[in-house]
Amino acid sequence: MSDIEVLAHHACFDGSLRFVRHNSQALGVPATFGVFLPKEALSGQKVPVIHLLAGLTATQETFLIKANAIRFAAEHGIALVAPDTSPRHTGIKGEDDSYDLGSGAGFYIDATSEPWSHHYRMETYVGEELPSLTERLYPLDGSRRGIMGHSMGGMGALLQALKYPDRWKTVSAFAPICHPSTVPWGQKAFDAYFGGDPMKWQRCDPTLLLRSKHTHPSTILVDQGLMDQYLADLCPDALEAAAKEGGQSLELRRHAAYDHSYWFIQSFIADHLTHHAKGLSA
Amino acid sequence: MSDIEVLAHHACFDGSLRFVRHNSQALGVPATFGVFLPKEALSGQKVPVIHLLAGLTATQETFLIKANAIRFAAEHGIALVAPDTSPRHTGIKGEDDSYDLGSGAGFYIDATSEPWSHHYRMETYVGEELPSLTERLYPLDGSRRGIMGHSMGGMGALLQALKYPDRWKTVSAFAPICHPSTVPWGQKAFDAYFGGDPMKWQRCDPTLLLRSKHTHPSTILVDQGLMDQYLADLCPDALEAAAKEGGQSLELRRHAAYDHSYWFIQSFIADHLTHHAKGLSA
Repeated sequence: MSDIEVLAHHACFDGSLRFVRHNSQALGVPATFGVFLPKEALSGQKVPVIHLLAGLTATQETFLIKANAIRFAAEHGIALVAPDTSPRHTGIKGEDDSYDLGSGAGFYIDATSEPWSHHYRMETYVGEELPSLTERLYPLDGSRRGIMGHSMGGMGALLQALKYPDRWKTVSAFAPICHPSTVPWGQKAFDAYFGGDPMKWQRCDPTLLLRSKHTHPSTILVDQGLMDQYLADLCPDALEAAAKEGGQSLELRRHAAYDHSYWFIQSFIADHLTHHAKGLSA
Repeated sequence: MSDIEVLAHHACFDGSLRFVRHNSQALGVPATFGVFLPKEALSGQKVPVIHLLAGLTATQETFLIKANAIRFAAEHGIALVAPDTSPRHTGIKGEDDSYDLGSGAGFYIDATSEPWSHHYRMETYVGEELPSLTERLYPLDGSRRGIMGHSMGGMGALLQALKYPDRWKTVSAFAPICHPSTVPWGQKAFDAYFGGDPMKWQRCDPTLLLRSKHTHPSTILVDQGLMDQYLADLCPDALEAAAKEGGQSLELRRHAAYDHSYWFIQSFIADHLTHHAKGLSA
């Protein structure tokens, strides 16, 4: 455990918010995550946990600072875990050159193409290493684990839930990238991280997973603003149609005036925490 | 009105959050502020307003992004106005060199010493120009105006309330700089902005104002974390003693585990909005 370093800790809503660096096995570089422990966890009680996956250009701080989620996590006695959005400082040439590829843009998938394959293994990191690590460090109940994300992180949350339904009891997303294999963001990332193999693309596209009957036993909650500047590239309609086709229970709520920002997220975050709290207490 | 430019606008809690640039008369440079209009204001109803003054290094975005105040402003039907913490790009040599002097560190006072006196007039800006401008642009009720701040901004809120009690009906602060003339931050700023004139220093020190019987008719709410890394330079005890001496009603709450951050602020922001809502509805 000597590789665990607490970079900062703050009292928040009678609980504790911490930023922690560790040497990630999956990523092969040091990685930093944020964790909120409600007061129940501080007194040693095992609590449910929601993992928060942020979008392009974000870090482990973004969701925690901007979503206003901690207030409701504290109210429900739920912990939060927020990973970074990619490995950092891997030494891969050009990793910092684009907002939508490389650092800040890990897409929560395991790259198989050179040079990314050595470090860009965010699917394994957020799905295996980070839950395992945080449940070893803190009193978190791995049988009551939810996942939530925004944009690229919404896609990540959907991928985790649909590919690994046993890992996550509850799932929700804000403005997720629903059908990445058909839009520029996803095509650029998948081409770089996977090369041309269509099977690998299909296994990382929530809409295609649903069409091929990968489902999650819970109702998935998705909020989408209709003034979202990226709406055309998010494809919520395709997700909705695929959920129907695949037999997935989906509550997709459309909000007329809202955009892609965390001002949108904070307006509806309370509903998401309630959604997870219900599912995680069942 | 042609000098008003809306840089960004976002739906938030059924209201509208905007960032607006204008040519400030008081500052002699363009200035940017944030404003949250609750849905009542969007439908033309005159609403109360709270001005939010942020601390050193912050901008017009900081309080709005990090304090989680908008949710409660929306619930109470109150508007929020958030100015920047100083003029920017004034051309004064060295204005960007220090975190605690010049840009990001206007201290909400009107400088009288060269070279700062030409632009660093934040007392007039936040106390006169910005209320006047925002009440002309939006349906805000200038007779129901509150002020709240953090750290340097907490000092600014106390100064405004004690020097101009007719302007502000309610006041509160998180971890304010209570006695600036006795601590390095205030001494450095006052020396630069005022020179050695002790009368000018006294007129910008909340503790000294209270001692000389400048009071506000309402109860001032102050929250202070006892793990605040700047506690020794904030002097809440001096403020408390001076309030008693000056006959000022003060509710100073001390919180054992909390530090100077917005994680502290968000933990208690609901109480501050309630405090202002009560005072502004009376």
